[in-house]
Amino acid sequence: MLKVDLNSDIGESFGDYKLGIDEEVLRHISSANIACGYHAGDPLIMDKTVEMAVKKNVAIGAHPGFPDLMGFGRREMKITADEAKCYVKYQLGALWAFARSKGVNLQHVKVHGAFYNMAAKDVELSQAIAEAIYEVDKDLILVGLANSEMIKAGKKANLKVANEVFADRAYNKDGTLVSRKKEGAMIHDEDEAISRVVRMVKQGKVTTITGEDIEIQADTICVHGDNPRAVEFVEKIKKVLQSEGIEVVPMGSFIK
Amino acid sequence: MLKVDLNSDIGESFGDYKLGIDEEVLRHISSANIACGYHAGDPLIMDKTVEMAVKKNVAIGAHPGFPDLMGFGRREMKITADEAKCYVKYQLGALWAFARSKGVNLQHVKVHGAFYNMAAKDVELSQAIAEAIYEVDKDLILVGLANSEMIKAGKKANLKVANEVFADRAYNKDGTLVSRKKEGAMIHDEDEAISRVVRMVKQGKVTTITGEDIEIQADTICVHGDNPRAVEFVEKIKKVLQSEGIEVVPMGSFIK
Amino acid sequence: MLKVDLNSDIGESFGDYKLGIDEEVLRHISSANIACGYHAGDPLIMDKTVEMAVKKNVAIGAHPGFPDLMGFGRREMKITADEAKCYVKYQLGALWAFARSKGVNLQHVKVHGAFYNMAAKDVELSQAIAEAIYEVDKDLILVGLANSEMIKAGKKANLKVANEVFADRAYNKDGTLVSRKKEGAMIHDEDEAISRVVRMVKQGKVTTITGEDIEIQADTICVHGDNPRAVEFVEKIKKVLQSEGIEVVPMGSFIK
Amino acid sequence: MLKVDLNSDIGESFGDYKLGIDEEVLRHISSANIACGYHAGDPLIMDKTVEMAVKKNVAIGAHPGFPDLMGFGRREMKITADEAKCYVKYQLGALWAFARSKGVNLQHVKVHGAFYNMAAKDVELSQAIAEAIYEVDKDLILVGLANSEMIKAGKKANLKVANEVFADRAYNKDGTLVSRKKEGAMIHDEDEAISRVVRMVKQGKVTTITGEDIEIQADTICVHGDNPRAVEFVEKIKKVLQSEGIEVVPMGSFIK
Repeated sequence: MLKVDLNSDIGESFGDYKLGIDEEVLRHISSANIACGYHAGDPLIMDKTVEMAVKKNVAIGAHPGFPDLMGFGRREMKITADEAKCYVKYQLGALWAFARSKGVNLQHVKVHGAFYNMAAKDVELSQAIAEAIYEVDKDLILVGLANSEMIKAGKKANLKVANEVFADRAYNKDGTLVSRKKEGAMIHDEDEAISRVVRMVKQGKVTTITGEDIEIQADTICVHGDNPRAVEFVEKIKKVLQSEGIEVVPMGSFIK
Repeated sequence: MLKVDLNSDIGESFGDYKLGIDEEVLRHISSANIACGYHAGDPLIMDKTVEMAVKKNVAIGAHPGFPDLMGFGRREMKITADEAKCYVKYQLGALWAFARSKGVNLQHVKVHGAFYNMAAKDVELSQAIAEAIYEVDKDLILVGLANSEMIKAGKKANLKVANEVFADRAYNKDGTLVSRKKEGAMIHDEDEAISRVVRMVKQGKVTTITGEDIEIQADTICVHGDNPRAVEFVEKIKKVLQSEGIEVVPMGSFIK
Repeated sequence: MLKVDLNSDIGESFGDYKLGIDEEVLRHISSANIACGYHAGDPLIMDKTVEMAVKKNVAIGAHPGFPDLMGFGRREMKITADEAKCYVKYQLGALWAFARSKGVNLQHVKVHGAFYNMAAKDVELSQAIAEAIYEVDKDLILVGLANSEMIKAGKKANLKVANEVFADRAYNKDGTLVSRKKEGAMIHDEDEAISRVVRMVKQGKVTTITGEDIEIQADTICVHGDNPRAVEFVEKIKKVLQSEGIEVVPMGSFIK
Repeated sequence: MLKVDLNSDIGESFGDYKLGIDEEVLRHISSANIACGYHAGDPLIMDKTVEMAVKKNVAIGAHPGFPDLMGFGRREMKITADEAKCYVKYQLGALWAFARSKGVNLQHVKVHGAFYNMAAKDVELSQAIAEAIYEVDKDLILVGLANSEMIKAGKKANLKVANEVFADRAYNKDGTLVSRKKEGAMIHDEDEAISRVVRMVKQGKVTTITGEDIEIQADTICVHGDNPRAVEFVEKIKKVLQSEGIEVVPMGSFIK
C-alpha cells in the first residue's frame, strides 16, 4: 500500500504569545515539527506540545531555527557551518529532553524557515546539519526539500532522509520551489493542489510552472495549522489521500 | 580509600565574550559543571567545553541557570515549579546533545547561581529540579548544597545525590552558608580553608561561625577557575587532599 | 469640570506574535502606555503603535518592564536600584526616538507588571524609577498606584505624578490592591466597577474589601484592550463618566 | 589648521562580560561609538560608558548593531529597510537617554559590524539608516565608510556626514576596502599605516592595493581599544598627527 506522511510546524507559541491551533492540526497530521526555543517556542510550550503530540499519536521531530525570535527565524543569517552544526545540536537536544520525559523517541529533524531555505541550496550548510544530526542520533530522519542539497547531504552522512513536498507551491524545472515573489508561485485552487499531491505520491511526478513533468519523491507533505481554514484543508488532503488508497502514517514507519 | 570530587563551573563564555580559564582549571578538577546557554554559554562554547573536558577525562554535568544572561543568572527570579522543571529539562537536553556527540554520558546536574541558592531553601523548587532530572535520566546525580532542601528533594525523587561543600565559606549552625553580606562569611586564609575541607572529608565535620562542630557530608568540593590565582588554589587543595590519602575522582565513581 | 484620564497598555505584540486589539482600544482611551522591547514590543511594533496613537490623538507614555520576554515581565526579579534606573532610562529613550520621529513628546512613564507591583511597595525601587525619569526628562509624569511608594517617590523627585486606580480591583484598608489570590479581589459586576470609579473621581473615596471608606485620588483609570469584550467595557466606562459630567482627557492636560 | 577625528567603538561589554579597555582608549580618541544593547552593551554599561566619555571630554555617538548578541553583530542578517530604520531609532533613542541624563547631546551615529559593511554597499539599507537618524535628530552626523553608499545616503537625507577611513586596511581602486580574506588586506607595518593616514588627511589621497592613487576624504579615523597594544598604536597615531600639524578634535567641531 502507498504511504505518505503529513507534517506540520507546531509549538510556535512563546511565553504569553499564542500562535497556531496546534491541538486541531494534531488531529490530522502524522508528524509534528516542534519549535525548539530559538526562532519560536519555549520550554513550557515544548513540554505541552510534546505532551499533546504523544496523546494524539503523532510522531515528533525537532524544528531548529536561527537564533532570531524577533524575525521568527525567517531572515537569512550568514552563519558558519560550525555554528549551524552547534545550533542544530543544541535545539535537538533540548527537545529530546521533553520527548524522553514522556517516554518517546524523536523521529526526525527539519530545520526552519530561512535556515531550511538556505540549506536547500547550500552544500556546506546542509552537510553541517546532517552531521549534527548524525553525531547526536544516527537513527533520526533528516527532512529536507525534495531533490535539494539537504537530501544529498543526508544521504552522504548515512542518515535516513525524507523528501518533503508542498501542496500549495509551484515547482521550477530543476525541482526547486518557485520563489514566492514570482507570479504563479502559489497554487490557490485547493482541488488542484490536492490532485498535484496525489500525483506526486502515486506517480512520483509533478508538472512545473513551465509545463514540463519532472520527477519528485513525496515522502512527507508540509501542511499548515495557523487557522481553522488551514486545518480544514489538511483534513481535506488527508481524506482525498485515503480515498485514493494512500495511507497517511508517520515517515518513520516507511522510510528506511 | 577516602574519595572526594572537585567540581568547577566552566563554559561560561558567550559569543565573543570570554570568561574563566577553563583549560587550566580542567587539569585539576574531576567534574565540570557546564553552562547551558541561559545564564551563560552558547552552543559553540558548549561544544568546545565538552570536548576539552572529555580530552582531560573530566566528568561532565549540566549547569542550568535562570534565563537571565544580563544578570548572569545571579538575580532571584520568582519562577513557578513548572517553569523550573522545564528550564532544567531544556538546558539538560541541550548539553546532552554535545556530550552524546563526543560519545560520553552526562554524570550530574547542578543548578546555577540564584537558582541554586533559592532551591537550597525552597522545597517546591528543589522538587521541581529533582523531578526534571529524574524524568529525563534517572541515572544522573543531583548536586546540591550539603544538608539543603535540594539534597532532600533528590533523595525523595530517587535520584543519587552529591553533597556539595565550599572551602572558602563559613557555615551556620543549621548547616547553611553564612551570607556573604555578613562578616566572617569568607575564609580568606588558604591553609585554614584547606584544612577545613580535609576535616569535612575525613571526619564529616565542620566548625561553624559560632564555634560549634556540625556534621556535614562532603561528596564534592566547589572550586573556581576565574583566574590563575584561583587555579593555583585548586591545585593546592588537590595536592593536600592527595597527601592526606584522599583520592580526587569524579563523583560518579563513588556515589551510589 | 471634573477630569480623568483612561490609560491602557498597548504595543505588546512582538515579531510575528500579536497581542491585544490596539486599534480598537485606542478609540476610547486618552493615554497609551507603550511597551518598550524588554517584556514585550519590538522596534517595528513601537513604530506602528506610536503612529496609531498619534493618529487617534492619544497621549503617549513609556511602559518599561523587566528584561523577561519569556515571562512577559510578570515575574519578580531582584534587580538593584541601579539596574532599575538604567532599565527605565534605556526603554524610555528607545520609545522617545519613535515619538520624536512622529513629532510628538512623551507624556508619562508607567512601569509594567512585576516591576510596577514591586515598586509600589519598595521605596528604593520607586526612587530609582523616579530619578531615572527626572534625569532624562523632568517634564514627564510618573504614573503609579494611587497612594503607593511610587507616588511618594515621584513627588520627592520633583516629578508630576498621576495616581492610578483600577475599576475591577478591590482595595485593602491601607489603600493597596487586594491580592488576586484572595477571594473578592476582582470586581466582576461591570456596573458596580463603574460606579466605584465614578465615586473615586467625584468624591475621592472607595469602599474597601472590609467595608470602610478610604480616600483615594483617581487621576487615571487603568483599562484593558485584550479582546472585544474588554474594549466594550472601556467604551461603557467612558460613556458613564461623560454622562456624569466627567471629562476624559490625557492626564497631561490637568496634572500640574 | 587641518583637523581630523579619532573614533573608537567602546561600551561593548555585557553583564559580567568585559571587553576592551575603554578607560584607556578614551584618553586618546575624540569621538566614541557606544554600543546600544543589540550586538553588545547593556543599560548599566551604557550608563558607565557615557559617564566615562563625558568626564574625558570625548564626543558621544550611537553605535547601533544587528539584534545578534551571540554573533556580536558581525553576521549578515537580511533585514528589511523598515527593520533597519526601526532598529537604528530604537538604539539611538536608548543611548540618547543616557547622554541626556549626563547633560550632553549625541554627536553622531555609526552602525556596527555587518550592518556597517552591508550598508556601505546597499543603497536601500543606507537610506533607511540615514532617514532613521534624520527623523530622530537632524543635527546628528552620519559616520560611514568614505566614498560608500552610506555617505551618499546621508547627503541625500540632508544629514551632515563624516567619511571614515582605516589606518590598517588596504583600499581597492574603487575606494572600497580590500576584503580581509585577500592577501595584503591588512597594513601590518605601523609606520606605513600612520603615514598613509597622514597623507589621507593632508592630501586627500591613498595608494590602492594595485598601486594607483585615489581620492579619499578622511574626516574620522577608526582606531581600536581592545588591548594595551592597540591603545599604544592609537597614542602613536595621535602624536604623529599632531606633529604633522593636524589637530585631533571631535568631528562635530569641523563637519558642517
